[in-house]
Amino acid sequence: MTAEAIGVVYRVRVAESELDERVEALLLEQTVELPRSALRTQYVREHLVGKVVGHEKVGAGDYRVTLAQPAIAAANDPAQLLNLVFGNCSLQPDIELEDIRLPEALAKMLGGPRFGIAGLRQVTGVHGRALTASVLKPIGLSVEETGSLCQTLALSGVDIIKDDHGLADHSFNPFAARVGACLAATRRASQETGRKTLYVPNLVGQPGTVMHQAWQAKHLGAEAVMVSPMVLGLPFLNELAGEIGMPILAHPAFGGALRIAPEALLGKLFRLYGADGVIFPNSGGRFSYSRGVCEGIARALRAPDIVAPAFPVPAGGMKVEALNSILQLYGSDTVLLIGGSLLDAPDKDAVLLRGREFVAAVHSFPYAP
Amino acid sequence: MTAEAIGVVYRVRVAESELDERVEALLLEQTVELPRSALRTQYVREHLVGKVVGHEKVGAGDYRVTLAQPAIAAANDPAQLLNLVFGNCSLQPDIELEDIRLPEALAKMLGGPRFGIAGLRQVTGVHGRALTASVLKPIGLSVEETGSLCQTLALSGVDIIKDDHGLADHSFNPFAARVGACLAATRRASQETGRKTLYVPNLVGQPGTVMHQAWQAKHLGAEAVMVSPMVLGLPFLNELAGEIGMPILAHPAFGGALRIAPEALLGKLFRLYGADGVIFPNSGGRFSYSRGVCEGIARALRAPDIVAPAFPVPAGGMKVEALNSILQLYGSDTVLLIGGSLLDAPDKDAVLLRGREFVAAVHSFPYAP
Repeated sequence: MTAEAIGVVYRVRVAESELDERVEALLLEQTVELPRSALRTQYVREHLVGKVVGHEKVGAGDYRVTLAQPAIAAANDPAQLLNLVFGNCSLQPDIELEDIRLPEALAKMLGGPRFGIAGLRQVTGVHGRALTASVLKPIGLSVEETGSLCQTLALSGVDIIKDDHGLADHSFNPFAARVGACLAATRRASQETGRKTLYVPNLVGQPGTVMHQAWQAKHLGAEAVMVSPMVLGLPFLNELAGEIGMPILAHPAFGGALRIAPEALLGKLFRLYGADGVIFPNSGGRFSYSRGVCEGIARALRAPDIVAPAFPVPAGGMKVEALNSILQLYGSDTVLLIGGSLLDAPDKDAVLLRGREFVAAVHSFPYAP
Repeated sequence: MTAEAIGVVYRVRVAESELDERVEALLLEQTVELPRSALRTQYVREHLVGKVVGHEKVGAGDYRVTLAQPAIAAANDPAQLLNLVFGNCSLQPDIELEDIRLPEALAKMLGGPRFGIAGLRQVTGVHGRALTASVLKPIGLSVEETGSLCQTLALSGVDIIKDDHGLADHSFNPFAARVGACLAATRRASQETGRKTLYVPNLVGQPGTVMHQAWQAKHLGAEAVMVSPMVLGLPFLNELAGEIGMPILAHPAFGGALRIAPEALLGKLFRLYGADGVIFPNSGGRFSYSRGVCEGIARALRAPDIVAPAFPVPAGGMKVEALNSILQLYGSDTVLLIGGSLLDAPDKDAVLLRGREFVAAVHSFPYAP
């Protein structure tokens, strides 16, 4: 089964005396969902029951358990794969999903980032340094105000301007009008600065609506889009990546608390399912990830694999003053996303000034891959 | 704002001295995502910033906090509503979503169960008692074996037979062939028993694929379907409910560990987004929900509301011997789902016998709404 096995690594909290029984139950729960005694079909016993590869003690009552599950159980289906690795056992509080290792055929089926780091560098035209990004917020701005803010940020020279993930198809700021206004704003700024800024609209809604928004945005001239895979479902991210032919930024909304290690969810699954850049809360901001977790997410996104590497996009409460240490942590194959710290300014001129300081700080940092 | 406010209840773990500051940050995080000082637009300050309704101390450093968020922020969008109530703060480990209360217009927009308890009773023809349900598993059976098992269970007299959520469009058991075989099996059994059994196929895949499967199943004669909303996304559940015109059973796979109280996720959100019956792990089985949590889920699914009530479907490690106490707990507006305990039998005759015991036990229980 080895060549066709999916490696799944769990942390299991269990007393040592019950470890073997617990792991056997976990192994069966994720595929056949029946005790071995109930498996009366030879094909099932031979092809659908995985194997325990091994376990390692992490601490008292805390084990890292690796299972090899049969790839055939995933049915070549992005959604069924999630059932296989974390369907039922997501409901068991003693289990955390720590890592998954896909055989080549399944990784290719998912496809990973269609653009990845190289493709997003090509679309933005930025090479040899980290990318700068900022955010259009707060929710509640009109189309004109959003376009005006977009122009200010673009004039400051940031490479990417994305919608806040809370910008939906609001009556006070409808999707298509906003996308048109922001694309126009970046074009105007570009004529002044001679540089390109990529505007990335947020897509949100029922999947059918979001697919419609994606094509509408592309038709209007957008060259990248953002979605929240945990709101919309990882299978939808995968469908969108396979269809739309533009880089996709992934936002972590609604997903942080799923008992999957952030490195596995944001670093591995988001990438495998097709995100070209993954936004995640940087350590020290308003969120709780440690520096080690953030490093782990970035490492997972860029690790050599069958699928293309994706950009880590640390965000959340980052300040211009701290940029050097952030760049030292992540290196240059990174998109630095600063929102609030630029926007919490008395007026438009102050926003422009802060944006320019942000851009200058990143441009002056020596390239470090 | 009261009439148009979304009530959101969080549990917040914080020291008393920091409570006000933490709650203010939470309030702003979920909409404008900026400090008040950065809100330079009057419309934003007046219409997009919610209010703290109040808080109640649950224990040391543990508060129940109720916010009123502006309904307009949800953009009449099932996906954006999730961002509003649990987008960014899902990434903050001191926060748990405990409840949400929608204004009438938003609940109507979501639509809730299109069939609900009354509709599912009508489709199955079962009135005046709890419904019985069982499962087709393990994964790995062929089309013929699945059809044969379906026939055996239908002959035992259960009202509903659903696919295991791991049954996908496998090469060894393709979706359309399986659906056809199982529908034929329930028809054959019905001719023998004179009673109807509802076969419920599992739908899984990218959203486009699943929508295709739903229509294909309906065309083949299926009268209900099952999906896993946390795998496919709650917005997809909502899209499907609005389109397909069949009762939908919702499976909790991939969703158990999200830091939302199970009563809020499975009881409230699954129902609001359109599930007609919600499967959840019964207490005492292989999963961890307490009796109180299970009661809370059932209560939330059936509570009087703008949307129709939905069936609680307790499942997971339930045994025929324990049925009376389970029925006492949940009452008769319940679907009892027993899989493994029927299927872990030496042969087909034993499965049939156990199924009949299950059916007889439920039928003999006096009606208790």
